[in-house]
Amino acid sequence: MTTVKEIRLKSRPVGMPTRDNFETATVELRAPGPGEVQVKNLWMTVDPYMRGRMNDVKSYAPPFQLGKVMDGGAIGQVVASNDPSLKEGDLVQSGYGWREGYTAPANTVQKLDTKGLPVQAFLGVAGMPGLTAYAGLLRVAGLKDGDVVFVSGAAGAVGSLVCQIAKAKGHKVIGSAGGPEKVAFLKSIGVDHAIDYKAEKDLTAAVLAGAPEGIDVYFDNVGGAHLEAALNTARLFARFAICGMISIYNATEPPPGPRNLAQLIGKNIRMEGFIVSHHSDLLPKFVEDLSGWVKEGKVKWQETVFEGIDKAPDAFLGLFSGENTGKMLVKLA
Amino acid sequence: MTTVKEIRLKSRPVGMPTRDNFETATVELRAPGPGEVQVKNLWMTVDPYMRGRMNDVKSYAPPFQLGKVMDGGAIGQVVASNDPSLKEGDLVQSGYGWREGYTAPANTVQKLDTKGLPVQAFLGVAGMPGLTAYAGLLRVAGLKDGDVVFVSGAAGAVGSLVCQIAKAKGHKVIGSAGGPEKVAFLKSIGVDHAIDYKAEKDLTAAVLAGAPEGIDVYFDNVGGAHLEAALNTARLFARFAICGMISIYNATEPPPGPRNLAQLIGKNIRMEGFIVSHHSDLLPKFVEDLSGWVKEGKVKWQETVFEGIDKAPDAFLGLFSGENTGKMLVKLA
Repeated sequence: MTTVKEIRLKSRPVGMPTRDNFETATVELRAPGPGEVQVKNLWMTVDPYMRGRMNDVKSYAPPFQLGKVMDGGAIGQVVASNDPSLKEGDLVQSGYGWREGYTAPANTVQKLDTKGLPVQAFLGVAGMPGLTAYAGLLRVAGLKDGDVVFVSGAAGAVGSLVCQIAKAKGHKVIGSAGGPEKVAFLKSIGVDHAIDYKAEKDLTAAVLAGAPEGIDVYFDNVGGAHLEAALNTARLFARFAICGMISIYNATEPPPGPRNLAQLIGKNIRMEGFIVSHHSDLLPKFVEDLSGWVKEGKVKWQETVFEGIDKAPDAFLGLFSGENTGKMLVKLA
Repeated sequence: MTTVKEIRLKSRPVGMPTRDNFETATVELRAPGPGEVQVKNLWMTVDPYMRGRMNDVKSYAPPFQLGKVMDGGAIGQVVASNDPSLKEGDLVQSGYGWREGYTAPANTVQKLDTKGLPVQAFLGVAGMPGLTAYAGLLRVAGLKDGDVVFVSGAAGAVGSLVCQIAKAKGHKVIGSAGGPEKVAFLKSIGVDHAIDYKAEKDLTAAVLAGAPEGIDVYFDNVGGAHLEAALNTARLFARFAICGMISIYNATEPPPGPRNLAQLIGKNIRMEGFIVSHHSDLLPKFVEDLSGWVKEGKVKWQETVFEGIDKAPDAFLGLFSGENTGKMLVKLA
């Protein structure tokens, strides 16, 4: 393999991105020099946070560069190695996504031991989205006995694991997602009260229907009306882990925040934003807990898979129209 | 004293309250029965949180009742006692404000030892507003070495103490208040960069002018544009103590929240609402620290005083037009 396709950022979107913001290019891969490996990607991930990287704005992840290949999580297999740490056939995780393959220094990729899980799980439930769910629920929100948990984007890669961790620990869980298919998925993973937000006029009433006593923890993947409903239904000393606000990522004008934010005061609510990279110290404990839950059948996951590098932009765009149940992935080989 | 005037809630305001929402009544005080005292009030307090109590909405403080005397903090002097715990001449603190005097069970008032401070200080710097500042800055925001502190409503009873505690602990403090007189007051208490928000078009730029490096702690008394500026200028892991949002208390339609709330995520900001009553365990430590700071000349305070019970509604309304520098008080005798 010396010729591969890659996806480049052709133009920066205003509002909702389209296929025109992406272009495909074919590049030649050099043979690995000393200390380098050549890798054929098997899977790549698309995630909502990448939308922010399409803007030319300084944030926690650097912006994608115009005319350059994009990047993100990927899992591949070594096809040629010029470094003693890796050999042909090894599975590796890297940040060299959005391309079919690459030649890179061996020390910029991580050898992957799948421990019996499917390789692509390490881009989802056993990877960054999984740790996001774990750290957000247990550390940021500080889940404690008796908490009633409300999760938005509950059928997504992060949200569905949040729901299942909370259930594994014996909590009542209210989950919101869009459409009957996702609601069925939420029920299948044990969510106590599944809300189809697209069919609800009053999200506050919908949450209260499942939790008349109110909620103690809110895991936010969505922002907007969901956050307002969480504020309305929060009990005293509720904790909100603010993980994402996909409802506003494509807004051309910054949309107003929740109109009921003053409820933070009387209810003594703690609202805390986080990104997973500040919680990587939890990784070993997360992997240990997750493998236990998987063995006990307490954690399941779904994937929505697009095939081929040419479909990567469609997979990404599908995140914003809610086309995925569970982790959105692109299978590259 | 057997005849006193009291202020009653005549009607519930829609939006900004007016004098018409209040009425004055004259009532006879009964002689104290067994276990009761009769008290002549010397001072009463008006505070922004009372605006919420004018609405018929369940919140952390119960709503004022239509046609009934209002209540709130007051300091008075015992004029007749039928209980061994109190004698004529004793100073007492109570929740029987908005009236010139009262007869009540002795166990519903607290004897006051002024420790050399003026009595009315116990409605301000040494009382509930003082503890609010202390608990909010030190516990809720978790002030730590090197933090840059931004305070809105900085010339008010709570805000001005927040500024001074932060200065006493060696921090850089940015304070915002309305008008040149308040800015002069902020400078006089050592605020490093005082913002007259009424003269600023761009609050974010105004904060950055004083703290180009950004802020670590925001103490919010105001909400609205100040909260947006705090989000814009926050550094990684900033903590916001949300104490009040006076900018929106009189809105007839709930105003939009901050448009940049998604910055919570990338900056890992913790935003926590609180009310002082959940922090009364800090009272002894607060009183000890405060008396030390007062002795060292590190804490000063101002009062804006209205005279006579008839002026109590004006004093209260003045809070929302910013007529007070420091604590707004009503002197009753």
